[in-house]
Amino acid sequence: MAGIKRKALESGAVKCVVKDLREEFVEDYLWPMLKAGAVYENGYLLGTSIARPLIAKHQVEVAHAEGATAVAHGATGKGNDQVRFEVTFMALDPSLKIIAPWKDPNFTLTSREAAVDYAKKHKIPIEQTKKQIYSRDRNLWHISHEGADLENPANEPKDNLFVISNPISKTPDKADYVSIGFEQGVPVSLSGKKIGGVKLIETLNEIGGKHGIGQVDVVENRLVGMKSRGVYETPGGTILIAAHSALESLALDRETMHYKQQIALKYAELVYYGLWFTQLREALDAFVDVTQRNVTGEVKLKLFKGRCSFAGAKSPKSLYRTDLASFKMGAEYDPTDATGFIRLFGLQTKVASIVNKGKKIKN
Amino acid sequence: MAGIKRKALESGAVKCVVKDLREEFVEDYLWPMLKAGAVYENGYLLGTSIARPLIAKHQVEVAHAEGATAVAHGATGKGNDQVRFEVTFMALDPSLKIIAPWKDPNFTLTSREAAVDYAKKHKIPIEQTKKQIYSRDRNLWHISHEGADLENPANEPKDNLFVISNPISKTPDKADYVSIGFEQGVPVSLSGKKIGGVKLIETLNEIGGKHGIGQVDVVENRLVGMKSRGVYETPGGTILIAAHSALESLALDRETMHYKQQIALKYAELVYYGLWFTQLREALDAFVDVTQRNVTGEVKLKLFKGRCSFAGAKSPKSLYRTDLASFKMGAEYDPTDATGFIRLFGLQTKVASIVNKGKKIKN
Amino acid sequence: MAGIKRKALESGAVKCVVKDLREEFVEDYLWPMLKAGAVYENGYLLGTSIARPLIAKHQVEVAHAEGATAVAHGATGKGNDQVRFEVTFMALDPSLKIIAPWKDPNFTLTSREAAVDYAKKHKIPIEQTKKQIYSRDRNLWHISHEGADLENPANEPKDNLFVISNPISKTPDKADYVSIGFEQGVPVSLSGKKIGGVKLIETLNEIGGKHGIGQVDVVENRLVGMKSRGVYETPGGTILIAAHSALESLALDRETMHYKQQIALKYAELVYYGLWFTQLREALDAFVDVTQRNVTGEVKLKLFKGRCSFAGAKSPKSLYRTDLASFKMGAEYDPTDATGFIRLFGLQTKVASIVNKGKKIKN
Amino acid sequence: MAGIKRKALESGAVKCVVKDLREEFVEDYLWPMLKAGAVYENGYLLGTSIARPLIAKHQVEVAHAEGATAVAHGATGKGNDQVRFEVTFMALDPSLKIIAPWKDPNFTLTSREAAVDYAKKHKIPIEQTKKQIYSRDRNLWHISHEGADLENPANEPKDNLFVISNPISKTPDKADYVSIGFEQGVPVSLSGKKIGGVKLIETLNEIGGKHGIGQVDVVENRLVGMKSRGVYETPGGTILIAAHSALESLALDRETMHYKQQIALKYAELVYYGLWFTQLREALDAFVDVTQRNVTGEVKLKLFKGRCSFAGAKSPKSLYRTDLASFKMGAEYDPTDATGFIRLFGLQTKVASIVNKGKKIKN
Repeated sequence: MAGIKRKALESGAVKCVVKDLREEFVEDYLWPMLKAGAVYENGYLLGTSIARPLIAKHQVEVAHAEGATAVAHGATGKGNDQVRFEVTFMALDPSLKIIAPWKDPNFTLTSREAAVDYAKKHKIPIEQTKKQIYSRDRNLWHISHEGADLENPANEPKDNLFVISNPISKTPDKADYVSIGFEQGVPVSLSGKKIGGVKLIETLNEIGGKHGIGQVDVVENRLVGMKSRGVYETPGGTILIAAHSALESLALDRETMHYKQQIALKYAELVYYGLWFTQLREALDAFVDVTQRNVTGEVKLKLFKGRCSFAGAKSPKSLYRTDLASFKMGAEYDPTDATGFIRLFGLQTKVASIVNKGKKIKN
Repeated sequence: MAGIKRKALESGAVKCVVKDLREEFVEDYLWPMLKAGAVYENGYLLGTSIARPLIAKHQVEVAHAEGATAVAHGATGKGNDQVRFEVTFMALDPSLKIIAPWKDPNFTLTSREAAVDYAKKHKIPIEQTKKQIYSRDRNLWHISHEGADLENPANEPKDNLFVISNPISKTPDKADYVSIGFEQGVPVSLSGKKIGGVKLIETLNEIGGKHGIGQVDVVENRLVGMKSRGVYETPGGTILIAAHSALESLALDRETMHYKQQIALKYAELVYYGLWFTQLREALDAFVDVTQRNVTGEVKLKLFKGRCSFAGAKSPKSLYRTDLASFKMGAEYDPTDATGFIRLFGLQTKVASIVNKGKKIKN
Repeated sequence: MAGIKRKALESGAVKCVVKDLREEFVEDYLWPMLKAGAVYENGYLLGTSIARPLIAKHQVEVAHAEGATAVAHGATGKGNDQVRFEVTFMALDPSLKIIAPWKDPNFTLTSREAAVDYAKKHKIPIEQTKKQIYSRDRNLWHISHEGADLENPANEPKDNLFVISNPISKTPDKADYVSIGFEQGVPVSLSGKKIGGVKLIETLNEIGGKHGIGQVDVVENRLVGMKSRGVYETPGGTILIAAHSALESLALDRETMHYKQQIALKYAELVYYGLWFTQLREALDAFVDVTQRNVTGEVKLKLFKGRCSFAGAKSPKSLYRTDLASFKMGAEYDPTDATGFIRLFGLQTKVASIVNKGKKIKN
Repeated sequence: MAGIKRKALESGAVKCVVKDLREEFVEDYLWPMLKAGAVYENGYLLGTSIARPLIAKHQVEVAHAEGATAVAHGATGKGNDQVRFEVTFMALDPSLKIIAPWKDPNFTLTSREAAVDYAKKHKIPIEQTKKQIYSRDRNLWHISHEGADLENPANEPKDNLFVISNPISKTPDKADYVSIGFEQGVPVSLSGKKIGGVKLIETLNEIGGKHGIGQVDVVENRLVGMKSRGVYETPGGTILIAAHSALESLALDRETMHYKQQIALKYAELVYYGLWFTQLREALDAFVDVTQRNVTGEVKLKLFKGRCSFAGAKSPKSLYRTDLASFKMGAEYDPTDATGFIRLFGLQTKVASIVNKGKKIKN
């Protein structure tokens, strides 16, 4: 963080405020998203999307604290991040002026390469080089990779692309197991011990990364109308989502679960589109929170070769009952119940058949 | 198939009709479901569900050919299959009487163990023993495992459970690649060569099974109101779904893809609930078919350690355009477009903010 | 109420408990449903459906208070009410035995006519005669009519069918106006004066009934698989729904409103299906409540000839802004914003056109 | 039409092409929308929205025929129509340049009043005056009114606003009846006689307008982010929608109807947003067309005092069966069917109750 500050001031900033937002990120952004089960399109776990409203919110707070009348961001005019930043600014303080250099007609840099040259010329220290010039975004939840050879969807990502997880070929030949405890949908323990959210994600990132968990490679639809291709590493997040989902399979009744699947699709859209500070997102959260009342228990997962597979779950609120699921029949089982159920469940189909085929009912 | 016939006749059947329905299964059931992207709850690929209406349909045809006035099935009164069979019978010929011995109050067998004893006593040859008494259902698409130690969701499935795929620990250390070609959503070629559907699935089952692809372990919600736990192996199906989904990410626009995700949820419900021969399923198919017009191209997947990961795709109908996705800006890019887009996209949020916070607009 | 008690005791009841549940009905059932905007299929305002869980809940409470081990209901085996009663019993106390005479194989009455004869023979006083033998259900919210000539959907309902509202031909030639005030989605005032819910509905029933408001005539799909035809009178409810909806059109942003339309469809299903005491209904309520935060204000409606039409609305939380809606353009309006918006909003369509038609972009 | 041509040429046009698109409007736009049941928000029947893509399509055709390289429209930068026109242009020929004077920064007219002055000065004949300066859009389906006193949602529309329908106070005291015949969802006859679509709508507009049918007054959410208030008259359309909906209540099974309600919401969004020429709209149409297979029959409606109420329907494909709906019980009715149905339908609720309340099952 000292480095960030120095870089900012040396680059000409009058003042630089650096905040550690990780706990707020986890509690107020990641956990609600986890509870919602939000995943965008073919598996993007929304690591960049979910961070933007938080950053923008604190920019507005700093602007207010400093008496600034404008906020700025460095996102380009082709991506989603500009929308996420600007809509958040508009939501939290519509009076703030928004400065977005990449979209300023007078801005002279028109490519990432030009930006690298510019930084070099003005002695701004950057990690990027022109050689392997992936565009990356990293935070507690994930790291993303875009650009360079990935821009052609015919290319397979190279093994050396990965930063926080091993390529599967380098993962250990022995599995690890983790047990994650949840209370009302929120992860609270690891291997039976209470643990804070930031520490939990860091720990799962490490062990998950070792086993190559959470690598996805997708072509996704941006809000601004074009498709882009991204490779994402989200080791800890992937483990948490798998565990949460497994616990929900015990704790949610069918109608709630199926409807929540639709809610999750909408939730993912809202996060991806930058519509965090909206009434609709709050309303979806309220829905989700009711569904999480019984999502309490512990899930064990096996981490091995890029997969985290179910290895058992327990919940005091489980709706799974062995006596009902079992093939054995007991006192509770009345065979005529199922017969009657199917007769009425299928009645519409039967009537439609009679109407469409002119069949008569005999039985 | 000779074995089936002999067993039937020796067990007392007057006549036994055996049909090879694999091609019809693929063309009329699996491909529509694949195009729809239907997956039930936490990953069940519907292998048993999708087979039932086909079997029931042919039972009705045989009944008609033989002049029979009743059809029968051996599903218990606790599961989904009874519904799928009986609703299909009702849809295709509501005049047929349905015989379901397990639900007959006079039927004396009340457990799987009792059925094994009964078969032994009456010299009906069966594979099941009382020892490892998983309930299994196998067809071209998948094999399912239920019961025994799996009935306790706290138990991890044993490695020796798997029948058509290797446990991950036994998979090769070298990846295989497959390229699957699609025309309008239907898989038509493997590694560039035209191939029939049955042969394609058999081939992918073999190579996918070798790499441990397609093992899922879920607690699912049955239609009849209880939860059950199933382990499924669907090697070829998993590969095909991954390939199809990757191609759709190139070929579908965002609005179509997002709406189709909802359609897929409903489609999966209908298949799982046995509502295949319904107008709603046909209507969903009509929706899906329009979306598949451009789902043409080739997808390369890497099979390794239980994962099939994206390794490149090409489509003549791809909506992915490098020039739009790229960070580079060219003649087509006008920075003010994005500014205007965001101003109107965020206008509702801005107005809501003004109303809720009493903020005034300055800029 | 004295009459009910006497009739019960004379008919053989050991004890009769009569409760006035109108206030609870309004606060805990009608207002949530109103806020949700739930309407079943082609306009049924759910007057009977919404009352059943409340009645069943109090039956369970009385059973507990009296130490009873069973509860009973008089619904037939063909309708929805049996489901609503019994599912509520199961939800609130699964240990209670359920007695439903009409479904008892030993019950000898098999038609409404037979029931009338039975009552006459045993001197049970009833309003129904065999002559005009509509099946009716009435409560604070509505009255329903089924059966008799209505059973043929080719028949138009007769003017003398209506009980709590005038047929349109008998309504006054002069309109009345009502102004209804809402706080967070709940109606709280009439013509500017605070009013309790029960009194409000009674008053609106009277004035709405005078003008023939709220008559609907629908063929609906029952949960148990058949269609039925019902005529409903819901004068006050219709006025309240119109007013609430008009206020929402001012207070909800577009994304929230459109998503809430879907929520309303599901909510109506749950109420109609008797699934009130479920987690999903509670979760939907939580969603709805967030959306109602700004649904505060006053709506004026004109009641005339069976219609209640919008006659103006005011809300301190209105998102409607004349300066934005107006055709006039001012300082805030930048014509390039719309241009940019449309360019990105239409970008997917443009790219699809290029791909599908081989068109090149020139501009 | 001669007037339009003269006006165009006198205003400086080089050439003017006038086309009668009414039949295409009805067959390719209105009937699909009617079948879909699309209604936007609180009752807007989409009369303007649905016409725009048709007009834009023919503009593109004329441009091609004339060798023009640009198309133009006169919509302002604040409304929906600009989007509908421009997105259609982009969909049908992305190479065409789009000219939109109201959004041109060099355009000097900034209000409707200024436009009236400009027209007067340049002797362009227009109907609008500065006095009652509603913005109106009229076609075969409807007329819309916006602006002037309607811009304040607290104002009730004046009786003299209405152009193609009587205010209710001026409607006849005697009802009229109409019978509309449908084939697969498409209206084909009036009072038993075959009739073309254009003639049918004209006839229904006249008789419906006489009775004041189809007046709605709504605050709606524009695509470009603000709310606006519109009053619409759609006499014939309202009658057709009511008739179609009534017929669907006989012909559609419950699952299809409920899912179609959601489809209708999306369809309305697409039409309103100008996304007619998209794959998603085509896919929705394909869904809808399957649902319409049995929507064949005749519906009788009573037109009276602004209401068109159901007065009976007949369909050879009706799923309504009196024997099932009736309170009478016959051979087909088995009381234990309903008991079993409810036991399984309510099983999840029962299990949840046991888990949440610690209740034991006794019965």
